[in-house]
Amino acid sequence: IAKEVAKLLEMKAQLGTDEGKHKFVLKTPKGTRDFGPKEMAIRERAFKAIISCFKRHGAEVIDTPVFELKETLTGKYGEDSKLIYDLKDQGGELLSLRYDLTVPFARYLAMNKITNIKRYHIAKVYRRDNPAMTRGRYREFYQCDFDIAGQFDPMIPDAECLKIVHEILSDLQLGDFVIKVNDRRILDGMFAVCGVPDSKFRTICSSVDKLDKVPWEEVRSEMVGEKGLSPEAADRIGEYVQLHGGLELIERLLQDPKLSQNKVAKEGLGDMKLLFEYLTLFGITGKISFDLSLARGLDYYTGVIFEAVLLQQENEHVEEAVSVGSVAGGGRYDGLVGMFDAKGRKVPCVGVSIGIERIFSILEQRLEASEEKIRTTETQVLVASAQKKLLEERLKLISELWDAGIKAEMLYKKNPKLLNQLQYCEETGIPLVAIVGEQELKDGVVKLRIVATREEVSVRRESLVEEIRIRTSQC
Amino acid sequence: IAKEVAKLLEMKAQLGTDEGKHKFVLKTPKGTRDFGPKEMAIRERAFKAIISCFKRHGAEVIDTPVFELKETLTGKYGEDSKLIYDLKDQGGELLSLRYDLTVPFARYLAMNKITNIKRYHIAKVYRRDNPAMTRGRYREFYQCDFDIAGQFDPMIPDAECLKIVHEILSDLQLGDFVIKVNDRRILDGMFAVCGVPDSKFRTICSSVDKLDKVPWEEVRSEMVGEKGLSPEAADRIGEYVQLHGGLELIERLLQDPKLSQNKVAKEGLGDMKLLFEYLTLFGITGKISFDLSLARGLDYYTGVIFEAVLLQQENEHVEEAVSVGSVAGGGRYDGLVGMFDAKGRKVPCVGVSIGIERIFSILEQRLEASEEKIRTTETQVLVASAQKKLLEERLKLISELWDAGIKAEMLYKKNPKLLNQLQYCEETGIPLVAIVGEQELKDGVVKLRIVATREEVSVRRESLVEEIRIRTSQC
Repeated sequence: IAKEVAKLLEMKAQLGTDEGKHKFVLKTPKGTRDFGPKEMAIRERAFKAIISCFKRHGAEVIDTPVFELKETLTGKYGEDSKLIYDLKDQGGELLSLRYDLTVPFARYLAMNKITNIKRYHIAKVYRRDNPAMTRGRYREFYQCDFDIAGQFDPMIPDAECLKIVHEILSDLQLGDFVIKVNDRRILDGMFAVCGVPDSKFRTICSSVDKLDKVPWEEVRSEMVGEKGLSPEAADRIGEYVQLHGGLELIERLLQDPKLSQNKVAKEGLGDMKLLFEYLTLFGITGKISFDLSLARGLDYYTGVIFEAVLLQQENEHVEEAVSVGSVAGGGRYDGLVGMFDAKGRKVPCVGVSIGIERIFSILEQRLEASEEKIRTTETQVLVASAQKKLLEERLKLISELWDAGIKAEMLYKKNPKLLNQLQYCEETGIPLVAIVGEQELKDGVVKLRIVATREEVSVRRESLVEEIRIRTSQC
Repeated sequence: IAKEVAKLLEMKAQLGTDEGKHKFVLKTPKGTRDFGPKEMAIRERAFKAIISCFKRHGAEVIDTPVFELKETLTGKYGEDSKLIYDLKDQGGELLSLRYDLTVPFARYLAMNKITNIKRYHIAKVYRRDNPAMTRGRYREFYQCDFDIAGQFDPMIPDAECLKIVHEILSDLQLGDFVIKVNDRRILDGMFAVCGVPDSKFRTICSSVDKLDKVPWEEVRSEMVGEKGLSPEAADRIGEYVQLHGGLELIERLLQDPKLSQNKVAKEGLGDMKLLFEYLTLFGITGKISFDLSLARGLDYYTGVIFEAVLLQQENEHVEEAVSVGSVAGGGRYDGLVGMFDAKGRKVPCVGVSIGIERIFSILEQRLEASEEKIRTTETQVLVASAQKKLLEERLKLISELWDAGIKAEMLYKKNPKLLNQLQYCEETGIPLVAIVGEQELKDGVVKLRIVATREEVSVRRESLVEEIRIRTSQC
């Protein structure tokens, strides 16, 4: 019978093997990737900087399910809706994977009737986009969102969002960057005075949004050709969207004979001026550019919009520099929560999303170039033995150390060679080795070896924990 | 035109409203939930304890995508496969949401040809099960997995997994618990000597697995009725599965005339004995029970299996006690990685999964009962003003504090009342208020108010950061 069992298990393993040989493809789904220990170490470093910034600004944290009712996402993303992942209908509700963290946040606010919150949310979102993994564009990727919801005096929360982007990008030392700022009201006003029919505002806005990737000529021909805008209107837009600057540009546009006559544009420009005043107090206008070509794709923005872009480094020492692009974006969306409320009650919101995957790509490439060795564990000490038959003693000692809160490892062998144990420490960066031997056991001591210097000291067993703590807090 | 824009926006908002009124259901998908700031604070507390234990044992961390190729999950979960969430076929690969973290881990090892790793992975998994949310059973839930992969001397990594469960459950102070241990080889041997045909091993194993929920009589009638086992075989199984104990039971079974003749059972019992020796060295046998009724549902286990169960408290001061159940489980799965390898190369693995949702439920209920007030932010100081027209001064000061790494908030109002500002601190637990006023500005000082004592001190502006650090490190 035992043989039969073994045969059965064998057959089962075979089955697995055969499948593997013939058709099974061993991979992660398209546009996704695993994070190994090294990538995780980098990822956690970046998250730490971002979370500590969000907490510095007093944010709470929330989490929502990875999928939502399909209808929750319907009608929020404009042309991008086709990129949403749906779940199979297996009976029950129709579900979709979240496309961003903003719509789930709005749903959360409406559902819980929250009118006032400052929260962050770090989680994966899903888009059936064309992946470009070397440039950090994935189908499953993290977003790090910070949002302020509530009815407040104008531009104070908006300014804080920009301050946060500035702090995070500075802190991560990603090189020079600029944060482009615009306002949907200024865009809408501009479209109006240029003679764009109301019905074409959103689609023309999508065209303008492409200006960071393609030249004006192409965008213009899309507007006129595909979208049926008059050439004159397109040319008028062309004049505006090349403008970018600071306070002086805002002042100039407030005097612009056409724009200043448009109510929403004027509101937007007034708020933009106020925003720049607050950013001046924060001392960050040096990296802010009021840019009339910034449009942002999503439907739900209603006011200020912004996007942070890394600038190409002149003396980039990395050979294959990650192609430069947007690393953060956000804006004001005062209508979104109301879309979920039965009575349409609005909760004004403004927020920022850090596009962490591009930042990972840059940090990874930089680490590779620097040849810095990154530790993937925090182990303080390896419990080792120089002689045979000491497994039990090693188990006893390591158990003592764990119970005292020391981070300790041992090799899972009955009689490991000392050399192998020391090599393991070299490879993994463990700084200390606690060696038990017959003599040490008799004397009530443990030999503590400092891996870096090869120095060995004899430590009384009852002082070992304290000694390890002292020695590892130094390094 | 401006009017037209406003009208358009109005219409859009209306549209959202009408949808909301008529058919839109505002909820999270069945079996899922949001985590608000309070729940997140509890969750992060539990994660911290678990992660610090995993790190104490020298684990690296990895992450994998939330979905896998459908075929990656095929044939790994036995009867539970029907609970897997599939994604809709939108062109391209067929995908499923991960059901656990073990199969993705095995896929990761095979794909990267890793034969040796100790890693943890904390992430959400998905099961289309019948949710019982009050008892912490969800369709989307976290698993906290720790696994050791590699060819090692027997039972050393297995013992460490049990030590980890013991450490985490002790650390979280969830009350008394027992860790049941068994071995698939002992079960298989037992089935063989009881006269179960080989082909019925797995399905009879599933029946045994129900013994923690339903009485033996029911399980027996399922075996005999539905699964066609002979009543004599069932009765023989019935005698074995009521056995539980420690080393003395292992010794007794090693002498059992039938079981000791079965090769796999003997191997399993020999290893069980070794395991108990190591657990004795770890000093944790008091909470370990060798239990022949433990079967575990999943197909992929090949050796030691275990499950931790909370025991009912006698003097439970919580009125509605969370119903007691399994909070951790795991075992050895030496064949799973080989199923993914084209050449069937095996990587022996053993691991443990902490079922954190039940733990959250318990911690949440306990917190509610205790009326402890949990802080959801870490804000150290509120930047406030007593007079009007000091928004700019508040912005300047808060910016200085943020840049110095102080966690600071302010109200987003031009002229907030001092009382409202103080109330905000009381509500959210912010311990300090930095008050700017005309006089303070002239004198180059800031008034620092300690919320708890209402004491106020005058601090020179250049010493403010240091003063806040000192005062908040004390509390």
